[in-house]
Amino acid sequence: MTLQNDRFLRACLRQATDHTPVWLMRQAGRYLPEYCATRAKAGSFMGLATNVDFATEVTLQPLDRYPLDAAILFSDILTVPDAMGLGLSFAMGEGPRFAKNVRDEAAVAELAVPDMNKLRYVFDAVTSIRRALNGRVPLIGFSGSPWTLACYMVEGQGSDDYRHVKTLMYSRPDLMHRILEINANAVALYLNTQIEAGAQAVMIFDSWGGVLADGPFQEFSLAYTRKVLAQLHKSHNGETIPRLVFTKGGGLWLPEMGELDCEVLGLDWTVNLGKARGLVGGQVGGPGKALQGNIDPNILFAPPASIQKEVRRVLDSFGTPHTDPNQSGPTHIFNLGHGISQYTPPEHVAALVEAVHSHSRAMRA
Amino acid sequence: MTLQNDRFLRACLRQATDHTPVWLMRQAGRYLPEYCATRAKAGSFMGLATNVDFATEVTLQPLDRYPLDAAILFSDILTVPDAMGLGLSFAMGEGPRFAKNVRDEAAVAELAVPDMNKLRYVFDAVTSIRRALNGRVPLIGFSGSPWTLACYMVEGQGSDDYRHVKTLMYSRPDLMHRILEINANAVALYLNTQIEAGAQAVMIFDSWGGVLADGPFQEFSLAYTRKVLAQLHKSHNGETIPRLVFTKGGGLWLPEMGELDCEVLGLDWTVNLGKARGLVGGQVGGPGKALQGNIDPNILFAPPASIQKEVRRVLDSFGTPHTDPNQSGPTHIFNLGHGISQYTPPEHVAALVEAVHSHSRAMRA
Repeated sequence: MTLQNDRFLRACLRQATDHTPVWLMRQAGRYLPEYCATRAKAGSFMGLATNVDFATEVTLQPLDRYPLDAAILFSDILTVPDAMGLGLSFAMGEGPRFAKNVRDEAAVAELAVPDMNKLRYVFDAVTSIRRALNGRVPLIGFSGSPWTLACYMVEGQGSDDYRHVKTLMYSRPDLMHRILEINANAVALYLNTQIEAGAQAVMIFDSWGGVLADGPFQEFSLAYTRKVLAQLHKSHNGETIPRLVFTKGGGLWLPEMGELDCEVLGLDWTVNLGKARGLVGGQVGGPGKALQGNIDPNILFAPPASIQKEVRRVLDSFGTPHTDPNQSGPTHIFNLGHGISQYTPPEHVAALVEAVHSHSRAMRA
Repeated sequence: MTLQNDRFLRACLRQATDHTPVWLMRQAGRYLPEYCATRAKAGSFMGLATNVDFATEVTLQPLDRYPLDAAILFSDILTVPDAMGLGLSFAMGEGPRFAKNVRDEAAVAELAVPDMNKLRYVFDAVTSIRRALNGRVPLIGFSGSPWTLACYMVEGQGSDDYRHVKTLMYSRPDLMHRILEINANAVALYLNTQIEAGAQAVMIFDSWGGVLADGPFQEFSLAYTRKVLAQLHKSHNGETIPRLVFTKGGGLWLPEMGELDCEVLGLDWTVNLGKARGLVGGQVGGPGKALQGNIDPNILFAPPASIQKEVRRVLDSFGTPHTDPNQSGPTHIFNLGHGISQYTPPEHVAALVEAVHSHSRAMRA
């Protein structure tokens, strides 16, 4: 079927669009009452994520409310370690937790790239969502990065100091490299299978890359993101599959990330988009990365007038994207710099999306 | 009395030293059994901080164990808002909490620069510690930055999303500016009074500056750090008082921080010290900032051989400091990139300090 709104994919490939496409990390989520209703029916987060009909339903919910320019698979970044046998669960009101953690030689020795059949529910959801979208907007698949998965696998849950994973990394770098090697191969296979199931772009979330020191970041996170990228399908059924990489807190490493073999770099709100464009955005007719981001999600707690002002400031900081229909050049995909908060008033999201579309059209006029 | 070890102060002023001075943020803390013993006697954290004898005792404890090159006042960054009447307390095993928070016009209208007599216990501790140090090493005084204090004042406690303070900032920037103006004047007066009581250097901890977006950081954090610096004593009793500024997560703003009227910039572990030196460290005979930091405190969970290796890597990334006895030039003060963890094995700190001293001497040879 023909894609009715291809702005997101065009912007990923640094092609001109009539407005700046926008989607929101975690756009299908708890801030939407209809999401909470579906989750209540599903009984648990994993009940929601593993049921194809529920996953399809919640993926489409934000698109029915807002004129967003892309859909993202509803799932969790921790499905891969769960399929490795670590036993993922979500206690009500808490973050993810694994039944087993990976902190010693014996636990590392047991790790292997999981059988993708254990993740069949994800690929079935991708196919189902593509069918339900019926060409409205493209569908983004995703995975956690090898390092980010390793953080959870070693810590066993979220952390505010990453003490266990960093202890392992600094004490036994050999074991950490072994985990990351397996994770990189698992993530690549997982994303390729999502692409084969219908994902039209894939995003790697290096949510915890920014907790690493300069030096260890390059060795333990970036190197393995690179290993994933090297294995990914670049096209499927004749369509180019853009690859997006987002390292939260990774703004200082932008020059090095600009060398990655991917199309789009995600940025958090600490980064100045104009400076980032200068560093890695490239020129019209030349190579470069599309940039995605980066408004502070907390702006959504302010009234619509404040949201509009801040949206304009973020769009203006990138500057007008290129408009040449015959060449590639600098482009911007609007997004938050992190997932949307569960406390967000839904009507404020409408104000944000409208402001992105209207101001970015005006900028091009 | 004469200072027996002036390496820290010399490095702050970009003067050559025979080894790189080292001290550790939160060096007097829970990882030391003797600290825990004193705290048990004091009954509570505030009982410890407000008792001059206890505060003196714990400030000197790490110096008795390790050949550190500076002492830092034992206190908390939240003493100033406590003196404003917000009611600071520390529940066992939890972070700080205020009885009152500041989220609306009425609460902001009640704020004022506190009477410094309410903070007399801090200044008395400074004087007592100076006396007890008897010239062994210099004493650093400190305060939270206006923005960091505002975070706690609005949130009422620590936060992982800074939702309330950012809601106020984005919705009512006028109120936020009013809070920050009062905080800046309070912090300047607080630090000046510490200097008058005997502090030989002062450090501003902008612990939460890094949670701000580019744009808001400059407007709501950096501008008020600048207002503090503009009011600080530059010397006391004929001695220059170096001023240190540390914005955790602020690496992207280093070029702008290089313009601050201060002597030293603190850096966290995400920053490459060699690049930072290139940006703001200056040349021999020219202006610039001394740099302080930046090893990941989690290295202290690894065995001594790993600690030594990482210390060398961090020292090497800065490169050899200048050694010209007749001119100022690039200097480095070794520190962690964040406070030391309560779970740190004390003997690992000894390995770190020894490695800094020995490797940095070898680099100069």
